[in-house]
Amino acid sequence: MRTAVFRKANFNSAHRLNNPLFDEKTNDELFGLCNNPNYHGHNYDLIVKVVGEVDPVTGYVFDMKILSDIIKDEIIERFDHKNLNLDTIEFKTLIPTAENIARVIYDILRLKIDSKFEIEITLYETPRNYVVYPIK
Amino acid sequence: MRTAVFRKANFNSAHRLNNPLFDEKTNDELFGLCNNPNYHGHNYDLIVKVVGEVDPVTGYVFDMKILSDIIKDEIIERFDHKNLNLDTIEFKTLIPTAENIARVIYDILRLKIDSKFEIEITLYETPRNYVVYPIK
Amino acid sequence: MRTAVFRKANFNSAHRLNNPLFDEKTNDELFGLCNNPNYHGHNYDLIVKVVGEVDPVTGYVFDMKILSDIIKDEIIERFDHKNLNLDTIEFKTLIPTAENIARVIYDILRLKIDSKFEIEITLYETPRNYVVYPIK
Amino acid sequence: MRTAVFRKANFNSAHRLNNPLFDEKTNDELFGLCNNPNYHGHNYDLIVKVVGEVDPVTGYVFDMKILSDIIKDEIIERFDHKNLNLDTIEFKTLIPTAENIARVIYDILRLKIDSKFEIEITLYETPRNYVVYPIK
Amino acid sequence: MRTAVFRKANFNSAHRLNNPLFDEKTNDELFGLCNNPNYHGHNYDLIVKVVGEVDPVTGYVFDMKILSDIIKDEIIERFDHKNLNLDTIEFKTLIPTAENIARVIYDILRLKIDSKFEIEITLYETPRNYVVYPIK
Amino acid sequence: MRTAVFRKANFNSAHRLNNPLFDEKTNDELFGLCNNPNYHGHNYDLIVKVVGEVDPVTGYVFDMKILSDIIKDEIIERFDHKNLNLDTIEFKTLIPTAENIARVIYDILRLKIDSKFEIEITLYETPRNYVVYPIK
Repeated sequence: MRTAVFRKANFNSAHRLNNPLFDEKTNDELFGLCNNPNYHGHNYDLIVKVVGEVDPVTGYVFDMKILSDIIKDEIIERFDHKNLNLDTIEFKTLIPTAENIARVIYDILRLKIDSKFEIEITLYETPRNYVVYPIK
Repeated sequence: MRTAVFRKANFNSAHRLNNPLFDEKTNDELFGLCNNPNYHGHNYDLIVKVVGEVDPVTGYVFDMKILSDIIKDEIIERFDHKNLNLDTIEFKTLIPTAENIARVIYDILRLKIDSKFEIEITLYETPRNYVVYPIK
Repeated sequence: MRTAVFRKANFNSAHRLNNPLFDEKTNDELFGLCNNPNYHGHNYDLIVKVVGEVDPVTGYVFDMKILSDIIKDEIIERFDHKNLNLDTIEFKTLIPTAENIARVIYDILRLKIDSKFEIEITLYETPRNYVVYPIK
Repeated sequence: MRTAVFRKANFNSAHRLNNPLFDEKTNDELFGLCNNPNYHGHNYDLIVKVVGEVDPVTGYVFDMKILSDIIKDEIIERFDHKNLNLDTIEFKTLIPTAENIARVIYDILRLKIDSKFEIEITLYETPRNYVVYPIK
Repeated sequence: MRTAVFRKANFNSAHRLNNPLFDEKTNDELFGLCNNPNYHGHNYDLIVKVVGEVDPVTGYVFDMKILSDIIKDEIIERFDHKNLNLDTIEFKTLIPTAENIARVIYDILRLKIDSKFEIEITLYETPRNYVVYPIK
Repeated sequence: MRTAVFRKANFNSAHRLNNPLFDEKTNDELFGLCNNPNYHGHNYDLIVKVVGEVDPVTGYVFDMKILSDIIKDEIIERFDHKNLNLDTIEFKTLIPTAENIARVIYDILRLKIDSKFEIEITLYETPRNYVVYPIK
C-alpha cells in the first residue's frame, strides 16, 4: 500500500476571466465581476499531493524539502505577485480560472517529478472555492 | 482527465438524536448528550464537490455562482436557523445525524445538478467530526 | 509588565432570540431568523484570557490545566449540548445573544479565578460573528 | 463595562504599490514584487469591531445584520473584484498598502456608524500579514 | 453507497530523523535540521477516517464517542507528550517520519476497528506538511 | 492615531518543563506530562505586532519584508528545530513555558526594532493555548 504526502504553498496574483471570442455583454453574463477589465486578485493556496512508496532508508515518500523547492522554483517564482493574464505565457490564450490554473500547475510539475509518483493539485482561489485536478 | 470543483457554505441548526422505537434509557446509551429532549445545535459547514470536464469556452467545470445559488436555494434556505427535527420534512422520521444529513443533502442536490456531473457531500458537524457521502 | 494567557474551549448549544415583552411581529423585526420558536444552534468557540504576573517558580501566569478544568466544570458542563433558553437558569429571563452569553461566562468565571488576575471572554457564535467582554 | 462585537467579511482585489514621486529603481527598492506594473492581488479578510453598551431590550450591542449590510454596501461593493489603483477614487493618489486600506475603511465606516460606538478595523492582506487601525 | 466519518485528534511529541546505518554527514544530507541530536517537536494533527454503511437504527456509521475513545486510548496516550524515538517501542528502530507515524497509527487502529470498516489516516506534521495512508 | 502591523511566523521545537530546585514528585505535580525527561515538542506560531505611524512616503508602518527578515534571523534561526532546554542559551536556566518564550522573544526583538515602535508578542504553543506579552 502506498502513502500520499502533501505540501502547501501560496501565491498572490491578479487575473481576469474573459473569452476574447465573445463580446463584452456575453463575457459579463459568463464571468460577472470576474470580467472586470482592470483585473482583481486572490491569495491562491496550493496543495501538491505526491503518492508513492515509502523509502525504507529515509522513511520518506518524497523529501519535502525537495518538493518545496520544486514548487518554489517552478510555480511560486512564475505566478507570485504576477498578473496571470499579462505576465505569464501560460495564460496568454488560456482563461485563468482555478480549473485551468490547477491543470497548468499539474502539467508543469508532472515534468519535474518522476513519473513513478502519482501527483494531484488542489488549488484554493478563496477559502470557499477550490478545485482538484486530476480526478480519475 | 476530469477536474473537481468545491464550494463551501454553512448553516446553523438545532437537532436532537433520538430513535422513537427505543425507550429513553436506550436512547441515552446510544446518543448520550445528543439525546437532550430540548435540543442542542451546531454550525454546520458544508462542502459540495462537483466533478466533470472543463468547458473550453469558460474554463469552468461548473459556474460557482450557479452552484452557490443552488446550495443557497435548496439547502441553506431549508436548514439554516431551523430545528432539523421539528421544522423540516426530511428529518420527521429520519435521525438527523451528520451521516443522514449528508445523504439528504446529496439526494436533494442530485436532482438539481445534471447527472453528467459526479457529486459528493462533505458535512462538518464540528471542526473535529465530519462525514463524506457517498464513498464508492 | 504582565503577560496574558489564553485557553480555548467550545460548546454546542441550541438557542432562540426572543423578548417576551414584545409581540411576534416585533420579535421578527428585531431578531429575524434567530426568533424561530423551535430554536436553532451553534458551535460556540470560547477563549478565556487571564492576565497576571509570571510566577518565577513555574514560569506560568496560571496553570493551563487548572484553567481548562475550571472552564470545563463551570462552563462546558453547564452549556454544552443544552438548550440555552430551556435548560439553563442563566437564560430563563435573559436573551441568549452572544453578548449576554459572554457576560454570563465572565460573571461565572470571575468568581472562580482570583481577583488578582484580570480576565476577558471572547465568544465566537460563528466564525464571522464574535464578541469580547469586558472592554474597558 | 462595554462589550465589543466583531463581524468578518472579505473582498478580492488587485493592487500595486508604487509612489509616482520616485523613479522605478526607488520603487523597486521600496516595494519589491509589490511594485509589479501589471498588478497582483489578494483575498482581503476584513474584521470590523464595534464597541458599545449592550441594549437590554435586544441583548445586542449592534445588530449584526445591520452591520453586515453596512459593510456590504459601503466596503464590499466598493472594493470587491476591483483594481484598487484603477477602479477606486480612494486610491487614486493614496498607495493601497494594507495600512492605508484599513484607514480608508475606517474613515468610510466611521461616517455610517453612530459616534457613540467605538470602531476598529482589522485587515488581513494574507494570513501572515495584517494590520489594525486605529491604535490608541 | 457507503459513508465516511472522520474524527480529529492531536498530540504533541518530540522526534529526530536519523538512520543509524549512516554516518552523521549522510544523515545531515538526508534529514537536515530534522537530524538535530537533541530532538525537535511538533503538534501533530491526526484525522481518522472510517468508511462503512450507515446503521439505520442509530444513523451512525460508527459512534464518534467510541472512535474518539479508541484514538485516545491507543494513540494519544501512547504518543502525546512523548519523545517518539526514546519513549516508544514503535520507533525504536523505525525512523519517525510522518509517513512512518501514519502507518504505525494505521496498524494499531486496524486491530481495534472491525475489518468491515475501511480506515485511513491523515497526519499533519505541520499545517504545510501532511500525509495520508494508505492510498489504494 | 497609530496603526499596528502584524507578521506571523512559526518554529518547531522540543522542550521540557522542569524546575531543578524541586524533586521529581513536585515537578510532576507542577508540570504533569510536560515534565517528561525525554522532552516533547510543539509547532509554535509566533505573531509579532509593531505599532507606529504610517510613513506617508511608503504607506507602511514597518516594511513587512524587513520585519520578516528580523524574525527569521533572530528567532527562527535560533529556535527552529531545536531543543529549547539543551540547544539554546536563553533557556539554560529559564523554564521554557510559553510565557517565558514570549518574553525572551520580546527582549530579543526589542533590541532590533527602533524604540519609537511599540511591539507585542503572541505565541501559540497549541491552537488552544497561547500567550501575549507584554500587557500594559
